[in-house]
Amino acid sequence: MSGLFITFEGGEGAGKTTVLNRLAQRLEKENYQVVTTREPGGIPIAEKIRGIILDRSHTMMDARTEALLYAAARRQHLVEVVIPALEKNQIVLCDRFIDSSLAYQGVGRGLGMEEVYQINQFAIDGRMPDLTLFFDISPRDGLARIDHNKDREKNRLDVEALSFHQQVYDAYQQLIEKFPQRIKKIDANSDIINVENAAYKVLEGFLP
Amino acid sequence: MSGLFITFEGGEGAGKTTVLNRLAQRLEKENYQVVTTREPGGIPIAEKIRGIILDRSHTMMDARTEALLYAAARRQHLVEVVIPALEKNQIVLCDRFIDSSLAYQGVGRGLGMEEVYQINQFAIDGRMPDLTLFFDISPRDGLARIDHNKDREKNRLDVEALSFHQQVYDAYQQLIEKFPQRIKKIDANSDIINVENAAYKVLEGFLP
Repeated sequence: MSGLFITFEGGEGAGKTTVLNRLAQRLEKENYQVVTTREPGGIPIAEKIRGIILDRSHTMMDARTEALLYAAARRQHLVEVVIPALEKNQIVLCDRFIDSSLAYQGVGRGLGMEEVYQINQFAIDGRMPDLTLFFDISPRDGLARIDHNKDREKNRLDVEALSFHQQVYDAYQQLIEKFPQRIKKIDANSDIINVENAAYKVLEGFLP
Repeated sequence: MSGLFITFEGGEGAGKTTVLNRLAQRLEKENYQVVTTREPGGIPIAEKIRGIILDRSHTMMDARTEALLYAAARRQHLVEVVIPALEKNQIVLCDRFIDSSLAYQGVGRGLGMEEVYQINQFAIDGRMPDLTLFFDISPRDGLARIDHNKDREKNRLDVEALSFHQQVYDAYQQLIEKFPQRIKKIDANSDIINVENAAYKVLEGFLP
């Protein structure tokens, strides 16, 4: 399989989604075939799984059930969207992937990073990203950006306590230490043009 | 946690469900508090997960997605039905549990017993059955029983090829070797009274 599988990770307000879309445009101008996606990515099976996770009537939802459901949705999105694009030699830019589960469920929800890693390894069956860009900004500064952005609807994770976001941030730092070849840190404490350029510089080295 | 968690396993037509119900009546007559259940057990979250698995329009369903969904439904049923009953010191008789996934998905679907075991360990978090009764009958004889029973609606697994059921049977034999303390073999080649008595004799040794 060729193609290039790049995932975008980071806390809330790090700007990763904006940069993802700008990089996609830039790569397309350079005549690369690019697929931008995020789970569940419009895949009916994965959408239905997310529907169960997000249903507010499911107050009995156990954290392990939730982690298994995220892994199931990830599997289906990978099989139906990511792998077919890679087989067509395309560049896949995916907004969040396995590292989000490791940080948010493994550490944030306290399930244990190693255990969440194992069920996700079952889900992805060795198809790890070729490159992961981590957009580095302190939780305090990231959340402050969200507060100032009136257009952005706050989601369930945005309103968690700062201490939760700090735990998630620390988990990402552990992951960078664990996977130094795959995960590259991008300084996100700057305006969007600078962040995009820094991300592009790293990405460039992976282009065919 | 006290209580007693007993699971019933075996191929199609082995009579396990009938014996489960008869044993429940017998234990109740002896003044034990008994809960009979099977996944998804009427738990809304688990029912919805099963609904996704069984939806015939989901032709794109990947075998790993399916295995993760089964594990998620198992987790929720365990948390909402099995564990609360055990905490009340009740005897839980559960029709199929982790060993069914190991045999049907791990071996029957070719995902690998060890890998399916790991995601199920995440799901059950150490809450293995205290006792598992395996109802032993050759796939050929078990399927012949189903053919003769006009009241029993054939399900998706009943109509798989004999070779599939033989693989599942062999997987169960491996599991008995792997967990000799937990899994006890019951000869199911007899009429239901004899099978029930044989099962009761084993179960008796585990009663408080």
